[in-house]
Amino acid sequence: MLTVTSPHNPTIKLIRSLAEKKHRQETGLFVAEGEQVLERAKAERWEPRYLLTTGHIGPWGKAEIVRVDERIMGQVSAQKNPPAVIGVFRQKWADRLVPEGTWVALEDMRDPGNLGTIIRTADAAGAAGVILAGQSCDPYSPDCVRATMGSIFGVPLVRMDQKDFLDICRAWPGESVGTHLKAAESYRRPYARPTLLVMGSEGRGLSEEAAAACSTLVRIPMKGGAESLNVAVATALVLFEAQRL
Amino acid sequence: MLTVTSPHNPTIKLIRSLAEKKHRQETGLFVAEGEQVLERAKAERWEPRYLLTTGHIGPWGKAEIVRVDERIMGQVSAQKNPPAVIGVFRQKWADRLVPEGTWVALEDMRDPGNLGTIIRTADAAGAAGVILAGQSCDPYSPDCVRATMGSIFGVPLVRMDQKDFLDICRAWPGESVGTHLKAAESYRRPYARPTLLVMGSEGRGLSEEAAAACSTLVRIPMKGGAESLNVAVATALVLFEAQRL
Repeated sequence: MLTVTSPHNPTIKLIRSLAEKKHRQETGLFVAEGEQVLERAKAERWEPRYLLTTGHIGPWGKAEIVRVDERIMGQVSAQKNPPAVIGVFRQKWADRLVPEGTWVALEDMRDPGNLGTIIRTADAAGAAGVILAGQSCDPYSPDCVRATMGSIFGVPLVRMDQKDFLDICRAWPGESVGTHLKAAESYRRPYARPTLLVMGSEGRGLSEEAAAACSTLVRIPMKGGAESLNVAVATALVLFEAQRL
Repeated sequence: MLTVTSPHNPTIKLIRSLAEKKHRQETGLFVAEGEQVLERAKAERWEPRYLLTTGHIGPWGKAEIVRVDERIMGQVSAQKNPPAVIGVFRQKWADRLVPEGTWVALEDMRDPGNLGTIIRTADAAGAAGVILAGQSCDPYSPDCVRATMGSIFGVPLVRMDQKDFLDICRAWPGESVGTHLKAAESYRRPYARPTLLVMGSEGRGLSEEAAAACSTLVRIPMKGGAESLNVAVATALVLFEAQRL
C-alpha cells in the first residue's frame, strides 16, 4: 500500500482532475465516494482502478490502494464532509439495448442532479436501463454520481444521438410512451410490454420529433398553479405507474 | 424610478445580504428571480418591497423599483444567467392549519433543493399546504425558491416544532399517513380525507415518534438494488396517489 502525503502526487492530481468533464472524457474514469456506495459497486462486480482511503482497506481486485491523510482526502472529495474512502472506476456504457422490461429514455437531459435522481429511481423501480439521448449531461460527473446514491453501478446506461433515438422510439416492439403536457391520455393506465418511457428536457419538454416518434403520449394531470413538474418527479410518477410495483 | 450603478448602494447591499440565512431571519425578506416567477407572485397577490430590473418595468403596488446595470444584476443574482428582474418579498408563514384537503408534512427536511421540488409538486398536485416540522432548512433560501419555480408563492407554509407536529399527527381528523420503509401496506390504496402525508428526512427517514403518531404507515415497494428513493420523488409518488388526479 502506497502512502501519499503530497497533493502533487500524480495519482492525486489525476483523481482531482476528474472533477472536470474534459479529463473524464480523456481518461474514461470517474470518482465515487463513500463506503456504502463502494459496497454497491462491489456487489455489482465493478472493480476500481484506485482506492483512496484515510484508514485501512482490504484488497479489491487489482485496485491500487492509496493511503492519504485527511487533508488530501478533503482536497480530492467533492463533498462537504469527505468520506473515509473514494474509488476511481472506468466508465461503462452498455453497447446494446435489448428491448425487454421497462427502459427510460431522457432527451437532452441537462441537470446532473436530476439525472442522478432518475438513475436512482430507475434502479428502485427495477427498470432495465436508462437511455441518454441527444445532448445529455455527463452521468459520471460528481453531482450525478452523488445523486444516484450508488445506483450508478446498478443501472445500464446507453447513449445515442437524436437520430438513433428517434429510430428506437419508432421501432420499439411494445409501447414507446412520451410524457407530454398536451397529451390527452392520463399516465394512469396499463402499459404494453416492453415499455419505453420517453421524457423531455427540463426547460423545453419533449421535442416535436420525439413526440411524433412515440407510439403513445400521456400527460400527468395537474390541478394547482404549477405549470410543470420537476423532470425527476415526472419520470418517477410514470415509471412507478408502468412498473405497478 | 431610482437608477443605481454602485454596488455599495444600501438597497443593493441589503438584497445581496439575503443570500445568507441570518439576514433573511433578521429582515424577514427573501429574493425571487425571473419574470415568470414574478408573474406567479402577482397572480397570487404578493407585493414586492423592491423590484430590481435591468430594463423597464411598470409599477407594482408600493414596490420600490430600482434600475441597475447588468453588472450589478449579475452580482445580486444567484443564477448563472442573471434574469432581467428580481423581486424582494416579505416571507409569509400561514398562522393556522385547517385540516382540509391534503397536507404534506416534512420532518427535519435538510436539502433546500428537495424542499423546493416538494413545494412545486405540492402545488401541481393541488395540496392544501406544506408543514415544515422540526429542524427544517429555510424554504426562502435562494436554492429552495429557485427549485419551486414560482410555487413558493402558491403553497401555504406552516412551521412548527416537533411536539406540535406529533400532536397534529395524532389529532388529525382523517388519516395521517407516514411513509416508512418497513411498513406493511403499499402506498397504492385509497386515502381517507382530509389526508396528512408525513415524510421523514433524507438521511434518517421518519422518526420513531412520528411513525408512532401517524394513524397509518405505508411503504413504496422497490424491486431494484436501491435502498431508498430521493425524498422529493417519494413525496410525489404518495401525493399523486392520495390526490388521484
